Amino acid sequence: MPDATINPARLNRSLDELGRIGDTPDGMQRMAFTPADLAGREYAMSLMRRAGMEIRVDPGGNIIARKAGSGFGLPAIAMGSHTDTVPNGGKYDGALGVMGAIEVAQALADQNLSLKHPVEVLVFTNEEGTRFHRWLFGSRAMAGLLEADDLTAVGDEGVRLSARLTDIGGDMSRVQQAGRSPDELAAYFELHIEQGPSLHQGGTPIGVVTGITGRWVFGVEITGTANHAGTTPMSARQDALVSASRLVLGVQHLASGLEICRVGTVGNLQIYPNTVNVIPGRVSLGVEFRDLDMGALSAAEEEFRRRAAQIAEADGVTIAVKRFENTQSVPIKSQMQELVAAAAARTGLAYQRLPSGAGHDAQAMAAITDAAMIFVPSVDGVSHAPGEYSTPEDCANGAQVLMNLLLLADERL
Amino acid sequence: MPDATINPARLNRSLDELGRIGDTPDGMQRMAFTPADLAGREYAMSLMRRAGMEIRVDPGGNIIARKAGSGFGLPAIAMGSHTDTVPNGGKYDGALGVMGAIEVAQALADQNLSLKHPVEVLVFTNEEGTRFHRWLFGSRAMAGLLEADDLTAVGDEGVRLSARLTDIGGDMSRVQQAGRSPDELAAYFELHIEQGPSLHQGGTPIGVVTGITGRWVFGVEITGTANHAGTTPMSARQDALVSASRLVLGVQHLASGLEICRVGTVGNLQIYPNTVNVIPGRVSLGVEFRDLDMGALSAAEEEFRRRAAQIAEADGVTIAVKRFENTQSVPIKSQMQELVAAAAARTGLAYQRLPSGAGHDAQAMAAITDAAMIFVPSVDGVSHAPGEYSTPEDCANGAQVLMNLLLLADERL
Repeated sequence: MPDATINPARLNRSLDELGRIGDTPDGMQRMAFTPADLAGREYAMSLMRRAGMEIRVDPGGNIIARKAGSGFGLPAIAMGSHTDTVPNGGKYDGALGVMGAIEVAQALADQNLSLKHPVEVLVFTNEEGTRFHRWLFGSRAMAGLLEADDLTAVGDEGVRLSARLTDIGGDMSRVQQAGRSPDELAAYFELHIEQGPSLHQGGTPIGVVTGITGRWVFGVEITGTANHAGTTPMSARQDALVSASRLVLGVQHLASGLEICRVGTVGNLQIYPNTVNVIPGRVSLGVEFRDLDMGALSAAEEEFRRRAAQIAEADGVTIAVKRFENTQSVPIKSQMQELVAAAAARTGLAYQRLPSGAGHDAQAMAAITDAAMIFVPSVDGVSHAPGEYSTPEDCANGAQVLMNLLLLADERL
Repeated sequence: MPDATINPARLNRSLDELGRIGDTPDGMQRMAFTPADLAGREYAMSLMRRAGMEIRVDPGGNIIARKAGSGFGLPAIAMGSHTDTVPNGGKYDGALGVMGAIEVAQALADQNLSLKHPVEVLVFTNEEGTRFHRWLFGSRAMAGLLEADDLTAVGDEGVRLSARLTDIGGDMSRVQQAGRSPDELAAYFELHIEQGPSLHQGGTPIGVVTGITGRWVFGVEITGTANHAGTTPMSARQDALVSASRLVLGVQHLASGLEICRVGTVGNLQIYPNTVNVIPGRVSLGVEFRDLDMGALSAAEEEFRRRAAQIAEADGVTIAVKRFENTQSVPIKSQMQELVAAAAARTGLAYQRLPSGAGHDAQAMAAITDAAMIFVPSVDGVSHAPGEYSTPEDCANGAQVLMNLLLLADERL
């Protein structure tokens, strides 16, 4: 097996440059399909071209950069992640996996190293799903996991996902053709920041991911009665925000107090008509629960629906609960975990096994190939926020482990 | 004293026509300074012209229509209200007072009746204050009650109130000149829907308003920490929405459970970044308390601040509370109440005395002249909502009482 080293300075320069696209005083605003997202994708493609890769965009809008291998008819080893961000997000989530994979490809080109397997770098469409509520869109398209709702999704602005997909070179009418056969891929590797505090607190440079937690997302609509805030007696109110507040505290209690599942969050909430002198008549909000144990998620849903029904009855409002997403937890095969551990050891870095609390493109890709993930520390566990940070040294460590993982896989798979 | 009758059909036609301006499937959207508001003002002015009145717009953007009186040097008797609405509002709040006053003027013209006092119809600017958070703007300008903040107010869209004021014919640089001397006015009468359930429930056609409740409005900013909803343990969160929910329930308990003041409402709330997979890092919201007793409002503020400090400490967030408005309650002089009662009796209608839970232009005008208010029933007490409704008969009753009030005042004042 050959030795090959990535260029830490170049990697961190690429991360910085990508991090300037969509940067604002309130954090990154490179949400999928926005002009900033398109600019980020262009930047990634410019680096891929420099690394001598052949580029195409599949009907799901995914960027696929490929370098042929020396072997005959071998499946590709793919590396990748996404370049879209959440609103007010950070510079490392997704970005590190893409810039790390490109750096690995560039370093191989610099050192004239050709692997037996073809090597691919993948940039997936709308991983975050903050637009159109259809997350992991690109990786699910590639893994053949799209559902009917994905094809017809319409955003808050009334624009169709299909129209936005066209903007980035995709084509909803042919999106099924983005699906790939397991024969085409030998493995998929994703380098990512942990986004939680474990590695940083433990001082461990590398995480070997054991699995990705399941995530259930619900949309809730609470309907009370809008009325004048000055003239309506307290006893005659159906205040949708009061009921929503009880529900928010119910979600918090469910995870924090009852410990039914690992985490539960209300992350978005809109009230109508949203003016100080009118009793809120309607509230819509989004709830998510996550756990590695699917039984825990079932129990959380049951308790949540029970609590919602209780509040609706007590407050005289209606509460409609709709499940938007139902993502199963995905274990990483032990053989793949061993490969990551071996790559970390070969790089001379300590590692720790841990589950991923966040969702990743790897969980969709696991449906069609062997997937593995490498984590690097997030300072103070901050992520999906402007303060998201991983040190240049940790980022470079991760990319070098990705390089060694690729070399090991090229030999062993 | 002459007899004069209003035209019920014409009044209700005017109300219907005004109610088509800014009407949407989600209710009225004739917020101050919007194109719909400008169109509503134009419509009112066209009716004023038809009634033979002389029209001017003062520097506060108020429309002042005037008909000279037969007496020499007498102060004017003014009638009026506003034509702006809250978002998703109704067709009667404000509109009835303006259309009723114009109908009275038109009926006097039809019957060639000239009063001793000059008669004025007033349409006040931005009564609702849903734009720029500066409510009763026009009536406060006329009463000389504007504050420094009114002159420099900037809306959520970053546009200055002064710019919007220019759009409607006002002029912020001369706004102090909108202030009128008590010598110019003999009285101000405002016909309005009750916006609460009392008259409708009691089957009483006319309300004689005894006073207008005080209203204290607070802006609250809760700052926690935005972070990844999947990777951040429950114990490591500072979730601003969880703290906001506790505060919303605190406001509700303060008025409903502890009964410290009559009503307390959180009507507007925004969360940031407002996406399902990010723990809310910041929430801003607006709180208002109303009561006729100013001591009750002081006690409510004290309890509210105590609760906010308690939540901030328990949740590890910061909660900044700023008082936006501090409107004192305004009693209606008993002499003026008697005049309204006499007008109702002369019209042959039963009446009931009651306080106003809502704020009105009359409370500002009371600072420079004797103010009185006539209420008519709101079906089911619904207001500030699309379902706001008063029957054509009740509207006509109110306008006839306004006519008789004007005739009585012309004789007695």
